[in-house]
Order: sequence, then C-alpha cells, then structure tokens
Amino acid sequence: MKLPVSTEWLLHCATTLAQLEAGATASAAQLARYYDLPAAYLAKQLQTLVKAGVLVATTGPRGGFRLGRQPSEITLLHIVEAVDGAASPYECREIRQHGQGALPPEECRRTCVIAVKMAEAHEAWRRSLAEVSLGDILATLSASVPSRTRTRLAGTNLDQPTE
Amino acid sequence: MKLPVSTEWLLHCATTLAQLEAGATASAAQLARYYDLPAAYLAKQLQTLVKAGVLVATTGPRGGFRLGRQPSEITLLHIVEAVDGAASPYECREIRQHGQGALPPEECRRTCVIAVKMAEAHEAWRRSLAEVSLGDILATLSASVPSRTRTRLAGTNLDQPTE
Repeated sequence: MKLPVSTEWLLHCATTLAQLEAGATASAAQLARYYDLPAAYLAKQLQTLVKAGVLVATTGPRGGFRLGRQPSEITLLHIVEAVDGAASPYECREIRQHGQGALPPEECRRTCVIAVKMAEAHEAWRRSLAEVSLGDILATLSASVPSRTRTRLAGTNLDQPTE
Repeated sequence: MKLPVSTEWLLHCATTLAQLEAGATASAAQLARYYDLPAAYLAKQLQTLVKAGVLVATTGPRGGFRLGRQPSEITLLHIVEAVDGAASPYECREIRQHGQGALPPEECRRTCVIAVKMAEAHEAWRRSLAEVSLGDILATLSASVPSRTRTRLAGTNLDQPTE
C-alpha cells in the first residue's frame, strides 16, 4: 500500500504556494528548482491539482500556479485524493460468492462485513486528512518563514534577476 | 494506494478457520477450493499469517491451518499487516531539505509537519482495524452459519468422502 512519491511533492508545493502574496504565482519550473524535482513530471502532477480545483493555472509571461481557494479551504485530503484518487486500498472481489463455499445470492445483498470494516478504516483515514487544512499547516510555521519562502521562490525564477 | 488482492483472501480464510471446532484444521487446498483461489499462491500467503502468529500450521496426514490465538485476540490489523507490512503509505523523502528552497538542518530536527499529519491519518486507519477482531466478525454471523461453514469446508477435502 503506497501513495505515489509525488504526494510529498504536491503537499509541499501547495504549502509553498499558500505562502505567496495574494494573486502571486510560481511556475512548475520554479517549484522544481525550489525542491530539486523533475520539472516535466512535476508540471503534469500540478495539473492534477488544477483539475481538482486546489490550484489555478494562469497563462502568459508571468503565468504559473496559485491556490484555487483559501488555505483554510484546502485540506490534505483534497491534495492526496487529487494525486491518488479516492478509492479504498482494499478491493473486495466478493470471493464469498465463489468456490465450493459460495454463499447464496440472497445472503449477499448486504455488503460483506469484512468489506464494511475495511471501508470504515479508510473513512477514518480520510477523516483524519480532511481535518487538516493548508491553513493549519501554515499556522505551525514560524512567523518569519513565509517571507523567506517568497524570497527563495523568487530566486528560482531564471527570467528575473533577483538582486 | 492498493492493498494486495490476497488481503481479501486472508481475511476470509481466517474468518472461515475461526468457525472450526477447537483443534480442527483446514489445508490450503481446501481453502482454495472453498473460495476458488489459486492453491499454491494461497498456501504461500497463509504462511505469512503463520509467521505473524495469526495461524498455526500443523503437519502430517491431517495437517493444515488453524487459528494461532482466540478469535477475540486476532484483529483485522494483525491480518492486514501480515499481508502488507506496517509501513505508512506516505513516503517522506525530506524534499524540504533539497533544492534552492532547502531548509537548514537545524530546522529539520523535528519531523516535517506534513509527514506528522500523514502519519496521524495512518494511525487512525490502524486504530480502526485494531478495534475489530475475528470474534467481532463471527458475532455478526447468523447462528446457523458456522456449522454450515464446517460442512462445506469438509466437502472440499478430497481425501475424505463426505457422505
């Protein structure tokens, strides 16, 4: 049971974008330099966050990505499920209905109790992630961090001299 | 994020073994016929439950598998982690320490808050599965089910005529 390695990338990129001034953007190339990530693959992954409404992509010479909603309105679950989908890791193939021990159909109208319990665990995981927003993550950062983040992120923009 | 397909197999096989009379066993071949599963692969997977102490394997002409502890002492988490390991699905590769935005080491002594929140979600999932034992699953079955399970399972034993 593994989440894609890009889950870490997108959680961190979204946290970084959450520290920008209102309306400011960062490009995939900038974020790739910021975290030393493969730019083309990161760009593709950032698009999945756009599709999910977590980010907005703007075009043009100063185009890039910014948050699509307030940090308090974006949870870790939004980001993780944008990357990996919302399916439960447990797959029930109804083996209870196969083989010599197969249950009759009338006993299988209700979801198998094992599948129910596995789904409850997945819901517990989802609830835990849904309880944490990017706003909550920002609130844990020292007061000086966001301005440093902005300065460093500006330094990854090869088109604009930073000094 | 996917659990192995054998997770369903082992949860059901353990539930079936939990319905046997004390001391009775079932072989991998029997369980494979009972659920129409590939016998060799199922046998291998059952061995992982033996290693985890969930099952005991007995040898000899009437050998097979039985529970290694009382049903109330075996949780869904024991079985799922025997199959898939206990690692969190989220992998933190410390990208915060890489690239042009790399944080200084003194700011990385504590676990990244994002990794902490992802670990908390995994713990919520684990807790949910640890709260459900095979005894709880058995308690949801109709009173007539265990004896039917035993009869059907006996019918999968090609060495012994069942009539």
